[in-house]
Amino acid sequence: MLIAVDASGGDFAPHEIVKGAAKAAAEYDVPIALLGRKSILDKLVKGYEKKANLSVVNARQIISCSEHPVQALKTKPNSPIVIGTRMVKERKASAFVSAGSTGAVLAAAFTMLDRIPSIHRPALATVIAVNPEKPFVLIDAGANADCIPAYLAQFGHMGSIFACQHLGIPEPKVALLNNGSEELKGNRLARESHQLLKNMPGINFTGNIEPQDMLNSLADVVVTDGFTGNIVLKALEGFGETFGKELGWQQSHQVPKELQGSALVNYAKVIFLTKRADYKEFGGACLLGLDGNVVVAHGRSKSKAMKGAIHLAVRASELEVVESIKAKISATD
Amino acid sequence: MLIAVDASGGDFAPHEIVKGAAKAAAEYDVPIALLGRKSILDKLVKGYEKKANLSVVNARQIISCSEHPVQALKTKPNSPIVIGTRMVKERKASAFVSAGSTGAVLAAAFTMLDRIPSIHRPALATVIAVNPEKPFVLIDAGANADCIPAYLAQFGHMGSIFACQHLGIPEPKVALLNNGSEELKGNRLARESHQLLKNMPGINFTGNIEPQDMLNSLADVVVTDGFTGNIVLKALEGFGETFGKELGWQQSHQVPKELQGSALVNYAKVIFLTKRADYKEFGGACLLGLDGNVVVAHGRSKSKAMKGAIHLAVRASELEVVESIKAKISATD
Repeated sequence: MLIAVDASGGDFAPHEIVKGAAKAAAEYDVPIALLGRKSILDKLVKGYEKKANLSVVNARQIISCSEHPVQALKTKPNSPIVIGTRMVKERKASAFVSAGSTGAVLAAAFTMLDRIPSIHRPALATVIAVNPEKPFVLIDAGANADCIPAYLAQFGHMGSIFACQHLGIPEPKVALLNNGSEELKGNRLARESHQLLKNMPGINFTGNIEPQDMLNSLADVVVTDGFTGNIVLKALEGFGETFGKELGWQQSHQVPKELQGSALVNYAKVIFLTKRADYKEFGGACLLGLDGNVVVAHGRSKSKAMKGAIHLAVRASELEVVESIKAKISATD
Repeated sequence: MLIAVDASGGDFAPHEIVKGAAKAAAEYDVPIALLGRKSILDKLVKGYEKKANLSVVNARQIISCSEHPVQALKTKPNSPIVIGTRMVKERKASAFVSAGSTGAVLAAAFTMLDRIPSIHRPALATVIAVNPEKPFVLIDAGANADCIPAYLAQFGHMGSIFACQHLGIPEPKVALLNNGSEELKGNRLARESHQLLKNMPGINFTGNIEPQDMLNSLADVVVTDGFTGNIVLKALEGFGETFGKELGWQQSHQVPKELQGSALVNYAKVIFLTKRADYKEFGGACLLGLDGNVVVAHGRSKSKAMKGAIHLAVRASELEVVESIKAKISATD
């Protein structure tokens, strides 16, 4: 297994990316190829060589978030996004991880990797663990802004397979994100998707779930379109940040001296919750439905988030998520 | 001015509704008509008669949330929702406030009240004050699950008028809720609405806003469709509740004895934030675009939330929001 990591993508590249990759390589005992400007990366990697299994692949071009994704892929064939995706396609890497332009990463994956037969649209699945004892999968977290009911039904199926493997839940409860629990609630997309999910074999569909119940562990898989999913994810992030900022704890995490006993425990809980609601900590989202593993990390990923994203890539490779989707989706959809 | 209040609607009717109405009548010096079963309400009102200006209007039928809204309106003409809406239509009340079935309240308003000329769709505007120094208006908070770009553009205009009057902001910054700040981000509805809002006279459109920036006061008015708006509102509620519950503070709000000094201040801040993020505290949403004031309160409203919703109704009546929309929207849309 080799994980290809875009060392030029994200707000804190390359330093934090390399740091996270070094940690991940050591902790998960996995070789990692860092993709970026060789001259810079060679120097950075030196500091970690003793403990980590890191190599460097030269990729001198950088695609920025302001560039048009499809256009950028054409004009920058030597970018980590193009090279990393090709490594996955050619089976030279088990997975590609990038905190760079999400649009470009998705465009590269969609155009360069094969779609698994009978998959309508690949979707981003992310694990939300604000309640660490009951994490759940949100799918689609942002790959498809415009959806039709058939897409959402299949997201439910892919999400169920992913939750089963990744979270170890035998029959994951699959719910549709909606603004009401009743069957006829929601917009047209939600109402029609509900009917398809209800009649779908191979999944344990439990009905609608309202956003305020998502964090209450009522579902293992929350299905929605990529626009709504991304909005909810970013709302969750914003809320965690607001709490943190207003409390002045985000930066330092220093515990005031006055705190003792149960107050200290509560204080720690708040910090913990704030961190957990911050999706930079989630570790990224796995693109499901393609013949290869691609993990999209948050653009603001620091080393810890990067390590998490790489862990997700390692898990997806080990658990053979692609093979499971191939086997199960073709059979029933 | 007389405010008609549905005393049978919501999870805590009639006790908490009457309590909230009594407080509002006293604090805002406004007469309130309580709509519900006279025999029950007469007894409840007695406890408040000395301090509050409360009257009772008999409305013996109750529409539950599980009933089909339009059907229920036909079979239950003696429900507070039908009677209250008629009082507004016949100018016997300045506003109607209900924590009952949102679907039925909206259906009654849509069918019984006149639409202001040139308004495509009435929309729910709610004030979110998680940051109390920079509250903002969210529109549509849930009246129209399925929208077209022309609706959203007009929501921006109505929201701007509402924010100008209600929040006292001369030229409110109007932004479109989207999952990216760039002009071409989002689903088709968002992309097309962006173009209409950009070219709309009479509003100060500042572009897209991502949900994580909503609470950072970057816009005075956040425009979205009713499905997404309702999802975001409920997500905000859910996160507030989760924080509160996990910290064990929601119920008691008792401060642990160990807390002193700055730790106590931080502790208070957390409770305050948790409460502010709880949309039962927001005070309700104002339905804009109809020839009359209707305020939808949260179904779980207790007296404080009810008082807030009544306050919103009083403000809308005093500020003549309906007249402003009539004057300004007809002129430009």
